[in-house]
Amino acid sequence: MSTRACGRAVGEIRPVTITPHYTRHAEGSVLVEFGDTKVLCTASVEKGVPRFLRGKGQGWVNAEYSMLPRSTHNRMRREAATGKQGGRTLEIQRLIARALRAAIDLKKLGEHTITLDCDVIQADGGTRTAAITGACVALAYATQWMKAQKMIAQNPMKTWVAAISVGMVDGQAVADLEYTEDVSADTDMNVVMTAEGEMIEIQGTAEAAPFTHQQLLDMLALASQSIAELVDIQREAMRPAISGQL
Amino acid sequence: MSTRACGRAVGEIRPVTITPHYTRHAEGSVLVEFGDTKVLCTASVEKGVPRFLRGKGQGWVNAEYSMLPRSTHNRMRREAATGKQGGRTLEIQRLIARALRAAIDLKKLGEHTITLDCDVIQADGGTRTAAITGACVALAYATQWMKAQKMIAQNPMKTWVAAISVGMVDGQAVADLEYTEDVSADTDMNVVMTAEGEMIEIQGTAEAAPFTHQQLLDMLALASQSIAELVDIQREAMRPAISGQL
Amino acid sequence: MSTRACGRAVGEIRPVTITPHYTRHAEGSVLVEFGDTKVLCTASVEKGVPRFLRGKGQGWVNAEYSMLPRSTHNRMRREAATGKQGGRTLEIQRLIARALRAAIDLKKLGEHTITLDCDVIQADGGTRTAAITGACVALAYATQWMKAQKMIAQNPMKTWVAAISVGMVDGQAVADLEYTEDVSADTDMNVVMTAEGEMIEIQGTAEAAPFTHQQLLDMLALASQSIAELVDIQREAMRPAISGQL
Amino acid sequence: MSTRACGRAVGEIRPVTITPHYTRHAEGSVLVEFGDTKVLCTASVEKGVPRFLRGKGQGWVNAEYSMLPRSTHNRMRREAATGKQGGRTLEIQRLIARALRAAIDLKKLGEHTITLDCDVIQADGGTRTAAITGACVALAYATQWMKAQKMIAQNPMKTWVAAISVGMVDGQAVADLEYTEDVSADTDMNVVMTAEGEMIEIQGTAEAAPFTHQQLLDMLALASQSIAELVDIQREAMRPAISGQL
Amino acid sequence: MSTRACGRAVGEIRPVTITPHYTRHAEGSVLVEFGDTKVLCTASVEKGVPRFLRGKGQGWVNAEYSMLPRSTHNRMRREAATGKQGGRTLEIQRLIARALRAAIDLKKLGEHTITLDCDVIQADGGTRTAAITGACVALAYATQWMKAQKMIAQNPMKTWVAAISVGMVDGQAVADLEYTEDVSADTDMNVVMTAEGEMIEIQGTAEAAPFTHQQLLDMLALASQSIAELVDIQREAMRPAISGQL
Amino acid sequence: MSTRACGRAVGEIRPVTITPHYTRHAEGSVLVEFGDTKVLCTASVEKGVPRFLRGKGQGWVNAEYSMLPRSTHNRMRREAATGKQGGRTLEIQRLIARALRAAIDLKKLGEHTITLDCDVIQADGGTRTAAITGACVALAYATQWMKAQKMIAQNPMKTWVAAISVGMVDGQAVADLEYTEDVSADTDMNVVMTAEGEMIEIQGTAEAAPFTHQQLLDMLALASQSIAELVDIQREAMRPAISGQL
Repeated sequence: MSTRACGRAVGEIRPVTITPHYTRHAEGSVLVEFGDTKVLCTASVEKGVPRFLRGKGQGWVNAEYSMLPRSTHNRMRREAATGKQGGRTLEIQRLIARALRAAIDLKKLGEHTITLDCDVIQADGGTRTAAITGACVALAYATQWMKAQKMIAQNPMKTWVAAISVGMVDGQAVADLEYTEDVSADTDMNVVMTAEGEMIEIQGTAEAAPFTHQQLLDMLALASQSIAELVDIQREAMRPAISGQL
Repeated sequence: MSTRACGRAVGEIRPVTITPHYTRHAEGSVLVEFGDTKVLCTASVEKGVPRFLRGKGQGWVNAEYSMLPRSTHNRMRREAATGKQGGRTLEIQRLIARALRAAIDLKKLGEHTITLDCDVIQADGGTRTAAITGACVALAYATQWMKAQKMIAQNPMKTWVAAISVGMVDGQAVADLEYTEDVSADTDMNVVMTAEGEMIEIQGTAEAAPFTHQQLLDMLALASQSIAELVDIQREAMRPAISGQL
Repeated sequence: MSTRACGRAVGEIRPVTITPHYTRHAEGSVLVEFGDTKVLCTASVEKGVPRFLRGKGQGWVNAEYSMLPRSTHNRMRREAATGKQGGRTLEIQRLIARALRAAIDLKKLGEHTITLDCDVIQADGGTRTAAITGACVALAYATQWMKAQKMIAQNPMKTWVAAISVGMVDGQAVADLEYTEDVSADTDMNVVMTAEGEMIEIQGTAEAAPFTHQQLLDMLALASQSIAELVDIQREAMRPAISGQL
Repeated sequence: MSTRACGRAVGEIRPVTITPHYTRHAEGSVLVEFGDTKVLCTASVEKGVPRFLRGKGQGWVNAEYSMLPRSTHNRMRREAATGKQGGRTLEIQRLIARALRAAIDLKKLGEHTITLDCDVIQADGGTRTAAITGACVALAYATQWMKAQKMIAQNPMKTWVAAISVGMVDGQAVADLEYTEDVSADTDMNVVMTAEGEMIEIQGTAEAAPFTHQQLLDMLALASQSIAELVDIQREAMRPAISGQL
Repeated sequence: MSTRACGRAVGEIRPVTITPHYTRHAEGSVLVEFGDTKVLCTASVEKGVPRFLRGKGQGWVNAEYSMLPRSTHNRMRREAATGKQGGRTLEIQRLIARALRAAIDLKKLGEHTITLDCDVIQADGGTRTAAITGACVALAYATQWMKAQKMIAQNPMKTWVAAISVGMVDGQAVADLEYTEDVSADTDMNVVMTAEGEMIEIQGTAEAAPFTHQQLLDMLALASQSIAELVDIQREAMRPAISGQL
Repeated sequence: MSTRACGRAVGEIRPVTITPHYTRHAEGSVLVEFGDTKVLCTASVEKGVPRFLRGKGQGWVNAEYSMLPRSTHNRMRREAATGKQGGRTLEIQRLIARALRAAIDLKKLGEHTITLDCDVIQADGGTRTAAITGACVALAYATQWMKAQKMIAQNPMKTWVAAISVGMVDGQAVADLEYTEDVSADTDMNVVMTAEGEMIEIQGTAEAAPFTHQQLLDMLALASQSIAELVDIQREAMRPAISGQL
């Protein structure tokens, strides 16, 4: 396996750490770091569900995503000041919510809503995949708290869900693109998978040049292997609380 | 190949028609129909480019997407009345714009902006893939008009770009989902490809259950074959104007 | 009667066609064409009424109006993207709603709301008068559907309501101004009348010069005659469904 | 002439007073009262014109209209708090601006913009007609100030413009409807005329029942006579400043 | 005591008048004038309380503040047109509401909401302090009306609340800054007190230079004395209605 | 000195830490902690100044403040999703900006704008005073960076500015209120001072009961002493970079 400008092997992800209980008010709260990318993920439990689900005996999982104005190289305008969330923000938070709903049995959740807030403290590429990976741990902690509070009878988590970015950079498939790779990639793809290696979401975009079927397969292979590593880290981050329950 | 509830074979797309010159003011204007899904696509040429591109000697392609309030089974709220475009709308119009920019050489376009308006007159599943497929023809007509007006020296179209939805329905991969299939699909995937069969965008989402690597390959095979058919229809729709120039 | 630049006689309206069932989801759906002006009018039936009418045993009729961005010579900004509906849009949709409420017995409608969406596909002057004329047919089809569904016991339509623009152009009163006449008119007036020739709304504006009492009378005479012609076309468009019920 | 519930004769307007110099910062500032309806009209002069007029050597007149939240019987929501101006507000301020532009020679105004702010302090019917009538005096004072400041060489006022509401109440045409008449009127019509008795704008709406051609003529006759009286009052309000200059 | 550029002594407030019943619809309505600063304050009574107070058996007092566009030397943009209330507006109306809630026993108010609208007709410095001082009288009139209507059993007013601006101008503490002093002040402070001389709110800001402890004491002494004078004027303005009830 | 429910003495502030270089992109970035209150303060340097300052040869300092949705006990709605910043947010960020502008010589800053973003990671009372105290250190680091980059010739920092909340709780004046004290305080006051003990801003609000002159003096004495302690901590946090330059 050849190496890249950043020094990593093509399939090598950045050092990943997940710190549980990073803030104290949320029912689940973790800081997830993929190298220099740092995202605070909190899970907030509320009674009740959105109007379209009332009376159906099931719960719901929402997500919101935001970048702090100076999480990036140049300061971005604060969306609260602008008065609306941009297309990229809405797209990412819809992705996070869909991914996390695949991790949980909404029936077992009962009529509760869990909101996952993913706030990017520092950005260096891969914020949405870090957010999904961290939010899944925050979600697991929050459901565990619900069980301890006897709000729910059974653990509603079905599996771990994690995500990684892969892409074509300088003609080769690489995993976990950092910012400098991201801007020069020919193709950028985000993949969300379960602990069992099944796919939840795949979003690939040709940035500079179309990609071939073979390149897609190469990228998927890297994604699959990286996500397996991430799931191990998720399990580890949950261990202090429950011993391998998932 | 087995058939589906709708009577079509798994790889069979709906009857597709592309009617050029559907309205008379736009530089390019087509009505695209994928069965009962009908989208009006217009291409509007304006001088100048967005601020971030000024002075770089290249053009730009934008897209906007909207559904007429009663294009759907139940009336949707009009986004102009609501005061903002929803996440789905923004996501789709970002997708359309990215896809179409892959079809064109922005340098050859010079400092012009082409805006593709995709307005859904009637919806029956697959509105975004119909929009991309139709908008590419509107774009080709608009660039041809620019050349006739001597606004540009060379044809900037690099290739045809078309799109199709594929999915897993009742355990089998199928192409071009109509509304009733869309709501019951386990997986929904939109694929954008060039005339040469290379990929521009792939967006697959597990709606009800994760999908496997093999299922992904099955869906991609159907997409590839369907898009080849769509490109033939695009070429045909352009023929009255130019004889096989693309 | 002298002729005009456009070739029509001063009191001659453009060819008008009303195509019922233009789209398939709405309870009433017509495409109305006044020459090159084309407006899609749909009538959507919903249970319930706005808050201020609850419990009063009557229904309500609303209208929304919009121009597709490239229905005009130059592309207009999309109001959904701008974040608000402009003054002209709000003024027109208030006019349409008032006009149509005059055509219907709101008591007989019961506690239902009918929303008339008038979307301009292509504009060449007179979009608001075409919208009123077409929306009345869509409304008639929707109420007929309600009766067939046994949502209402009696036909609530009281009369036909149609509208025409008249104006002072080159010193003479003319009917049904097309775009080139509209921009050069000294006075522009929109008149809404019933099948019985009574007035529902009259809105006359001196664009370039004030108008005299006699000119007002001349314009009203043309309006009255044109609206009688439009009502015949409305009746004809309804015939396939019911034989002269109105 | 028979009388009405309010004690006035059918063609009798309420006591009208126009108080110049009501506030001290604006270039023109009058309080206009039509009975209990009280509107503060200020004219503000600014250099420059809107973008669409730049370099054309002419000026512009804008208007904004607002009701104080408790100018009405029940408190209305403040539009600044709601975040948008309603359709009625936009419609009225468009009307005021059109009416006042008919009173002035925009060429003689040079590249200046005059904004007429009409703020309703207390409402009892006829706020828009009072606003037009008062704003015309504020406009005259502002142009006189411009001339004194040598911003313009000639008086740009072409004529007086005034407005009155007329309507069908209890089967008879009446002038200057107060609130209780307004809510029970079958037809409500606002008429804007010049000092010469020519029409600038006519907006008639059937509220409860359509109106006939004869009723229209009756209402117009009352409007014509009332506006002549209002112009006398406008002239009187301007007298302290200039002796019959208009 | 030395004098200032405006001719007043350092502790001398401008002539203050409070005119009750300035408009006729509101339950309480006063025009308050601090010299050339003129604010219309209305108190509107509504049944019910905001959601967060429902069922708690108490009332609520809200405030809204706005400046008419040409109340100032240069025309300000109308916040209703801009689409949002600025930070200064929100800050002032929050201040007014807090101040007035200190004047009233919310329990005795029962489940009613009183909204105080403070609209600045003409501005010459000190609009927020004039607004608080006038609004308290409007509030007293409104509660008296409620008692007369038997909506409440007891007078809920606990005390008078009035406000004054003080500041450091040209090295000396002065009271009731008018506009020209306001823009040149080193420190600007608004003080809200009760009739008993206790403090409700104190907001001091160093505009050009920090202020010392001694300067703060000097300013407070002037504020205390000025507010005592204002309370006398408030009592006088209420006298026509009730003889010294507060 | 008696103690409080939280165990601290009345004049005792919580443990305060200021961690410089908390994130890596901003020109100045500190995490400030007042006990469990944690605020990330970044200072971003941009060329140019707002329009109203152009060509005046001076710089500007702005501030934005936000609470992460789950920084609080119950999740708050995200202002970016709501579409506007609330009154409290606007009020606080105006306060922070005013306070920090007092710390800097805007002339020496040249035509640059520094934006201070204060994002509350975890809230336990006193977020605005922590924000001011931390932002001043971020500002000092940013100006030091500008000097190193030779963007400015001289250190523009004039003094340290720090802030503390004081209040009346259970009848006694206390410093640095934590959340549980804040909600039960009779009076809440925020004080901003310089290193020299002069006042920049004082904002005191009677929450439950008015406060006396003596209580104000007691609170100010605690504020003065606490701010002196905070300035020592600010100096310490800057030491790694420059040795006692301020």
